[in-house]
Amino acid sequence: MGGTMKLLLRAARGEAVPRPPVWFMRQAGRSLPEYRALRADVGMLESCRRPDLVCEITLQPVRRHKVDAAILFSDIVVPLRAAGIDLDIVAGTGPVVASPVRTADDVAAIRPLEPGDVAFVAEAIRLLLAELGETALIGFAGAPFTLASYLVEGGPSRHHAKTKALMYGAPDVWHALCARLASITRVFLEVQIAAGVDAVQLFDSWAGSLSEADYRRYVLPHSRAVLDGLTVPRIHFGVGTGELLPAMAEAGADVVGVDWRTPLDVAASRVPGKVLQGNLDPCVLTAPWPVVAAETRRVVAEGKKAPGHIFNLGHGVLPETDPDVLTRLVEVVQSS
Amino acid sequence: MGGTMKLLLRAARGEAVPRPPVWFMRQAGRSLPEYRALRADVGMLESCRRPDLVCEITLQPVRRHKVDAAILFSDIVVPLRAAGIDLDIVAGTGPVVASPVRTADDVAAIRPLEPGDVAFVAEAIRLLLAELGETALIGFAGAPFTLASYLVEGGPSRHHAKTKALMYGAPDVWHALCARLASITRVFLEVQIAAGVDAVQLFDSWAGSLSEADYRRYVLPHSRAVLDGLTVPRIHFGVGTGELLPAMAEAGADVVGVDWRTPLDVAASRVPGKVLQGNLDPCVLTAPWPVVAAETRRVVAEGKKAPGHIFNLGHGVLPETDPDVLTRLVEVVQSS
Repeated sequence: MGGTMKLLLRAARGEAVPRPPVWFMRQAGRSLPEYRALRADVGMLESCRRPDLVCEITLQPVRRHKVDAAILFSDIVVPLRAAGIDLDIVAGTGPVVASPVRTADDVAAIRPLEPGDVAFVAEAIRLLLAELGETALIGFAGAPFTLASYLVEGGPSRHHAKTKALMYGAPDVWHALCARLASITRVFLEVQIAAGVDAVQLFDSWAGSLSEADYRRYVLPHSRAVLDGLTVPRIHFGVGTGELLPAMAEAGADVVGVDWRTPLDVAASRVPGKVLQGNLDPCVLTAPWPVVAAETRRVVAEGKKAPGHIFNLGHGVLPETDPDVLTRLVEVVQSS
Repeated sequence: MGGTMKLLLRAARGEAVPRPPVWFMRQAGRSLPEYRALRADVGMLESCRRPDLVCEITLQPVRRHKVDAAILFSDIVVPLRAAGIDLDIVAGTGPVVASPVRTADDVAAIRPLEPGDVAFVAEAIRLLLAELGETALIGFAGAPFTLASYLVEGGPSRHHAKTKALMYGAPDVWHALCARLASITRVFLEVQIAAGVDAVQLFDSWAGSLSEADYRRYVLPHSRAVLDGLTVPRIHFGVGTGELLPAMAEAGADVVGVDWRTPLDVAASRVPGKVLQGNLDPCVLTAPWPVVAAETRRVVAEGKKAPGHIFNLGHGVLPETDPDVLTRLVEVVQSS
């Protein structure tokens, strides 16, 4: 199989493939008992910094579900922590930032990321490449807007009101913050690409809270600074982004992530020429098997309307998901 | 002015009006100091059951902001509590249901709402009509899906996973539950209409978590059972419903609520012939005044592309909003 390009890469480049590749966001963890066992005594950030654990956790869902791609086990705040920002990931809450970033001085205090700061990620990727064979490895990073939302709010938030207040009220500070975050994210992804990942996914999970006009004015230039000219296929993902798909594609995506609110055939008409990724509702996995199978086949069929399709959920795997359902779902896609 | 139809009603019927009427969701409370003072020693549900308090709280934003419509102060769980369901509204959390509804027996135990159960609402409306003059009064109810989500989850939830699990896994139970909730909601609205409200708004706040296909299969028939044939203009609102606008209009809306993610001119093309309501991002109110004024004028201009436009936010007023900004915003719309 040595000379064959990996299925995910062929699909991401829009080449004809016999069936869509399949992987899941947050497949590396949360729903797997072997993940919970491994994490029982290890904090989230520590587990992201230990190459042996990153490698093992990244491989767990590949072994179990036989997915076509592994996603590097990490968290969007990992490069921020590596650049010296005082934050932690609190179980049941999410990222918590010691001193929220709200002024020009706060922004100026954020130092650039040096490749050596994330050497542990490069090492994890080297371990993974020795194991993965024909399974693609996808690199991982958070986009400037979503990273900024955590830094400005001080943690997760529902309305991102403080984030938007900074954006509207102090646009210079906002753009300076996003420029720094774009630089950090760019370095984080370049380290991963140099270490050998096959593709990258940029998570702008909360961009869907913005109107398209605000996205274009306050966010797109920074996401473009991250994605422009990267040498591997770039997947760009957010939730609730039905109206943003064209703008997110313009930010520099080869593959546009779509959630379940927008059918893939509708999405295909909004971003002509783009490969799509998605878009089964993660909640469908709690349904009886015939419903899961039928919905999976529907998504595969709708994906045929796009120039290319990578099967995924519309958002991350929910922690309460039965792992066996994921395994069966992979079989359905791979036999489609 | 006696013979003149109220501005909000004329706009809701698609008649030509000199400028859009303006009101806010959650204008009755949260951001107002006089509301907080009144609620200091009174629980949320108790305040919704006392006609004198409902009247006073409903009037507070009318006095302050001179909005064109009052929205009846209530909560979507008020008719459920009045029908005997054991629940409370916990400050900082939201509705909490003592025994979540998940089986056919749970559904069978929900009794119909009798008009007498909500006599306090009719009494509050009578008090209000004596005070309101040319200001329209909008009735208030939650839609079956959003009500069901609280009953099934037992409280607020992020992904509505248990709600969707019931929907997909036990559709008979799901439809029986929604039919009972539609009946309760219908009675609740008919009481309000009989007491004299000028229009009603049906809040399906969380419908935007559904795909259009699921919405049409599991939700639309029940919302239609609530709205069909009501004798006053019907506003139908949800968040993140860009893809659902046509289906929500079909459920029986004279006016379709739109959030800030979908520009009003885009929404107008998705629901031709419908009056639109919206859609300023509530977070914009935290911006410096020139930004608020410019964004307000943009929304007014985009609303001119629709057959009619009622100015509102895209979601409820955030508690941290400066009430003076709301007052000034009303002035901008009313002088447009």
